[in-house]
Amino acid sequence: MAQNLTLHDDRLFPADPAVRAIARRLYAAVKGLPIISPHGHTDPSWFAGNEAFPNATALLLQPDHYLYRMLYSQGVTLEQLGIPAAGQPAPDVDPREAWRLLASNFHLFRGTPSSTWLNHVFTQVFGLDVKLSAETSDLYFDTITAKLAMEEFRPRALFERFNIEVIATTESPVDTLAHHEAIRDSGWTGKVITAYRPDAVIDPEHENFRPAMERFAAITGEDVYSWRGYLDAHRKRRIDFKAVGATSSDHGHVTAATADLSPAEAEALFARVVKGTFTAADAELFRAQMLTEMAGMSLEDGLVMQIHPGSFRNHNHQIFQRYGRDKGADIPLRTEYVHALKPLLDRYGNDPRLSVILFTLDETVYARELAPLAGHYPVLKLGPAWWFHDSPEGMMRFREQTTETAGFYNTVGFNDDTRAFLSIPARHDVARRVDCAFLARLVAEHRIDEDDAAEVAVDLAYRLPKRAYKLD
Amino acid sequence: MAQNLTLHDDRLFPADPAVRAIARRLYAAVKGLPIISPHGHTDPSWFAGNEAFPNATALLLQPDHYLYRMLYSQGVTLEQLGIPAAGQPAPDVDPREAWRLLASNFHLFRGTPSSTWLNHVFTQVFGLDVKLSAETSDLYFDTITAKLAMEEFRPRALFERFNIEVIATTESPVDTLAHHEAIRDSGWTGKVITAYRPDAVIDPEHENFRPAMERFAAITGEDVYSWRGYLDAHRKRRIDFKAVGATSSDHGHVTAATADLSPAEAEALFARVVKGTFTAADAELFRAQMLTEMAGMSLEDGLVMQIHPGSFRNHNHQIFQRYGRDKGADIPLRTEYVHALKPLLDRYGNDPRLSVILFTLDETVYARELAPLAGHYPVLKLGPAWWFHDSPEGMMRFREQTTETAGFYNTVGFNDDTRAFLSIPARHDVARRVDCAFLARLVAEHRIDEDDAAEVAVDLAYRLPKRAYKLD
Amino acid sequence: MAQNLTLHDDRLFPADPAVRAIARRLYAAVKGLPIISPHGHTDPSWFAGNEAFPNATALLLQPDHYLYRMLYSQGVTLEQLGIPAAGQPAPDVDPREAWRLLASNFHLFRGTPSSTWLNHVFTQVFGLDVKLSAETSDLYFDTITAKLAMEEFRPRALFERFNIEVIATTESPVDTLAHHEAIRDSGWTGKVITAYRPDAVIDPEHENFRPAMERFAAITGEDVYSWRGYLDAHRKRRIDFKAVGATSSDHGHVTAATADLSPAEAEALFARVVKGTFTAADAELFRAQMLTEMAGMSLEDGLVMQIHPGSFRNHNHQIFQRYGRDKGADIPLRTEYVHALKPLLDRYGNDPRLSVILFTLDETVYARELAPLAGHYPVLKLGPAWWFHDSPEGMMRFREQTTETAGFYNTVGFNDDTRAFLSIPARHDVARRVDCAFLARLVAEHRIDEDDAAEVAVDLAYRLPKRAYKLD
Repeated sequence: MAQNLTLHDDRLFPADPAVRAIARRLYAAVKGLPIISPHGHTDPSWFAGNEAFPNATALLLQPDHYLYRMLYSQGVTLEQLGIPAAGQPAPDVDPREAWRLLASNFHLFRGTPSSTWLNHVFTQVFGLDVKLSAETSDLYFDTITAKLAMEEFRPRALFERFNIEVIATTESPVDTLAHHEAIRDSGWTGKVITAYRPDAVIDPEHENFRPAMERFAAITGEDVYSWRGYLDAHRKRRIDFKAVGATSSDHGHVTAATADLSPAEAEALFARVVKGTFTAADAELFRAQMLTEMAGMSLEDGLVMQIHPGSFRNHNHQIFQRYGRDKGADIPLRTEYVHALKPLLDRYGNDPRLSVILFTLDETVYARELAPLAGHYPVLKLGPAWWFHDSPEGMMRFREQTTETAGFYNTVGFNDDTRAFLSIPARHDVARRVDCAFLARLVAEHRIDEDDAAEVAVDLAYRLPKRAYKLD
Repeated sequence: MAQNLTLHDDRLFPADPAVRAIARRLYAAVKGLPIISPHGHTDPSWFAGNEAFPNATALLLQPDHYLYRMLYSQGVTLEQLGIPAAGQPAPDVDPREAWRLLASNFHLFRGTPSSTWLNHVFTQVFGLDVKLSAETSDLYFDTITAKLAMEEFRPRALFERFNIEVIATTESPVDTLAHHEAIRDSGWTGKVITAYRPDAVIDPEHENFRPAMERFAAITGEDVYSWRGYLDAHRKRRIDFKAVGATSSDHGHVTAATADLSPAEAEALFARVVKGTFTAADAELFRAQMLTEMAGMSLEDGLVMQIHPGSFRNHNHQIFQRYGRDKGADIPLRTEYVHALKPLLDRYGNDPRLSVILFTLDETVYARELAPLAGHYPVLKLGPAWWFHDSPEGMMRFREQTTETAGFYNTVGFNDDTRAFLSIPARHDVARRVDCAFLARLVAEHRIDEDDAAEVAVDLAYRLPKRAYKLD
Repeated sequence: MAQNLTLHDDRLFPADPAVRAIARRLYAAVKGLPIISPHGHTDPSWFAGNEAFPNATALLLQPDHYLYRMLYSQGVTLEQLGIPAAGQPAPDVDPREAWRLLASNFHLFRGTPSSTWLNHVFTQVFGLDVKLSAETSDLYFDTITAKLAMEEFRPRALFERFNIEVIATTESPVDTLAHHEAIRDSGWTGKVITAYRPDAVIDPEHENFRPAMERFAAITGEDVYSWRGYLDAHRKRRIDFKAVGATSSDHGHVTAATADLSPAEAEALFARVVKGTFTAADAELFRAQMLTEMAGMSLEDGLVMQIHPGSFRNHNHQIFQRYGRDKGADIPLRTEYVHALKPLLDRYGNDPRLSVILFTLDETVYARELAPLAGHYPVLKLGPAWWFHDSPEGMMRFREQTTETAGFYNTVGFNDDTRAFLSIPARHDVARRVDCAFLARLVAEHRIDEDDAAEVAVDLAYRLPKRAYKLD
């Protein structure tokens, strides 16, 4: 028989009754706050076109690399899930059967945030009340797919139902921003903004660097193969992005390295990059220099700068060759910040006009490097626990290891950082609950009083992300 | 007056009454499960010969480097404990007096797993009910030594009393396996198997490399000084090991480095190794290449591969010079896996026939490297918290830091990894209790329901180790 | 309305009632023990001159880099706080207005140890009972400043009121020790001793190296520019320091590197250092060699050796240029010990006459490197959680990550390591509470019995620091 599925009101709160009672009180005041989602990867075409999502598998399984990395680790192939090989049509896989692979392997996700997020979506969005399993697979597939066809499950309706005050997507400098313009011009009041993510034209080792540069030239009309024209092209596009709401740029480099070359050195380096005669060290130095250039442009245009370093992208060579990037095969790397950021900080670290939000996949730097840096430099703030660490244990470690040195006010609240649109309320709910659980322990241990904790809880859930990302 | 010693039924369970109640229920269902010990260092001669153990000191103190590293750190010399210098007869030390050094310094072990294990052995195996101290030293020595002379304290009787379903020892490729053959041929039903641990003939920097190679040649009849003959010798011995039950190989390298050289490069490297003209980098590269070679052989013969990297062996030069290896002077090192494993994974990482179990002494890689790797690659699984981390806090950190990304099902249950035979039930009991404590917290925080947790608890204690090590 | 401020009797104890009850019992027996402060940075002139402290800002804010690093991170300038630029007179800032900047930004310190320490001082030393805020800023400034003018708030009276049995300050080899001599000769019974901190004459890259060397020559009468004379100068000054109570030396290097050069190599290296022709690698090697030299001198004179590595000093270039060192801009670095300490340990690691206390700013080494090293080598002990980690979470992680391998008895109790004199009782109280909280959990989980825990609690608070620093 299918087992009941419920979402407990006290989920993620500490078990101790006294601490739990405090957590409940703190959470009650933040539970209903609007969602501020200043960094993520939803697709703006959803909100521009407002088409119905096709089915459970296409919406919930096929875009979610958290799900298929786990299934793949236990022998399910990407082909079985209907993932197309790069440049190929999708394999002829019945979405109902792909869904069944998730359903019959759902025990693999026990204890993972994916099960927490999905169960939240299943119960709160689709009203399901039995656990997902092989037995209930068809019930799930049919229920979800049927609801998705309804008007109130279209993207804009869900956006409103989810109480999203603002959401940022992420676009490349070669994006036309047509979807954002369409949203802006549609008369719909939902606030969907973009963010400037220039990796493809900044990382000479990116597999699309050369075609991206060609499109960068075309879209900006600048001579992007000259150093000055290249920088001007960035300036132009940053302004374009601001016009559809961008308040931030975002930089996903392998390391946190920054550099501060002389203009002549930078120009010579860029020339090697453009000619394709660069070494691996040149590529690293160019990315490093560009972070400092971007910081300089932020002084001009006010975009907040986000740095997301430390992922070894496409670690699985066979998967990358066959399926391309973003297939659940990115692996975190040990990441150093103290030496890496010094060139940028020496140049701009004390300038109150700049704001840099740091992320990491290497939790060892929370207490050792990031909290001490953010607890000193006026330009630095700490982004929330990220990617693999965007989870109850990961978020708790973030607070435990950063708060004592950086405080709460050098952090920026939560980012959902997801393309899994339906999971956004679940993810923000987890973050709010974990922060309240952390605060409740501090209150119970008489390290902060409950009045202060209540103010901090609202700051973390709502005020800090708005302020840090200039969304006021 | 001597103080009472009891083993509390709720030991290692969380203090909160609600969580403790859940932990008790989960534990009740796994407490009595047979012990699966797929990786360890007990001496097969014990089970082959079934001789009585001589006395408390010889059984419990002299082989346990956890004990004498701590005593040594506080000024007790190895000589005082009766440890022989390398190649020398044992010093003329009264085992009763050596035992007294442990007894009178037993406060040093407060809060350590050694005291947990020993107190379990003292109460459950020997029926002692007062705390070990200078005052009770003779009582302990006499009680234990007297019991060891009894029939029911012989190795096979204890094996059966301990409810061990299967135990693996670890042998070198130059071992004759005579003890294992004797066990197999004895008619005794206890399942004692071996594991293939070829470090001495794979690590050119091992102090016994050259004599081990000579014996490798003799025992296999292969030309082990030619690359092809050397590989064939490994193949042959792996088959010999399988014949006495081996289902796994084990590799204890300084780093996790792997390589994938061309056959010609590998052969040239091996020639330098054999000639003794190799550099330190050559030695590292050879060990790295041999991991990939061993993975290739695993595809042929099905042995599961274990990698145990990251120990700086024999760090104390004076102790090594005088007493040799394994004297409590091994120190963990920072260990990198993401780049290190890539050559092996590029070659075999997606082949469902291979299974590689990863261990670490560097807990910083749990969340950052190991869980993301095991949560993606079909060939990778995570071994349990190892060596210095085989402890309540260490095991809990392992679960807290791996579960959210790798889940439970990319882990392999517990390894006791010990030569301290009598502590085996204590060690498995600690692991089962800690896993139940972790699961109980997840249940109390409504992150997993109790039905699922109960299934996971049995999987971790029994099913996963059998499956991962092919012991079904 | 101003909010109440109270110091709860159960602060920092675990919330669970059973664990809290144990913690209370353990703490009751250590709460009133005298303070042993074997390592810190109070100013001996306070105790020599016994002058009244001028006002709240000068005593509590301006010397505390924990406070102004946080304020600076949120846009308060050092000038606004009245911090003088290097070599300049203090800016003309009203201390009452500087205090107001702290008061009106006190929410930044929520969840940080600074708020715990300050609230302890406010309530226990000054009898304040409302929270610090913009509204209460003047009340605070006036109350504190008025009390500081009273006889019972002079340094010696506070020393006695704080129940300090012994406190160590830290002086450079070029210090005349006049204040310590004055204290010794004053007839006052307070025990204020020094410690030998020779970094300025050992680190060739220290900004004061050359002038310090000149004063080193003058104060010792040795030819400090010859290798032999330089070493003799150290020997002489160590004896001088012992004469005013020193029992330890202290070494704050960038890394934990040690070396063991031949005398000829060391002499040649020193010649390059003296000539100023050294490379960065030479400077590192010289510091490394000097740790081993200092260890050798400790064998002669018995000083306990403290090693405090891993801080990137003066990371903020602009702040350093304008304000000099110790302005809250030091950032921890990843720090390696296993290879780094080997040269020193190979030479002296087994000599029972030597004692080396290791500190770290890199918590990842607790379980991986430091506990295994200290749990083996007779000369090594672990100093407490340091600097950024001298906090409830930091101290708890220290115990959780070191105890299982090193035990309690290879640690040395607490160091307050502070120049914030008034916070000393608060800091020791936090350490005692956190240790009791940790022990209480072990008791509640039946990992140690309460009799043993009670003994450990007293050892950690009182006996171990006295023994480790030879203060008996």
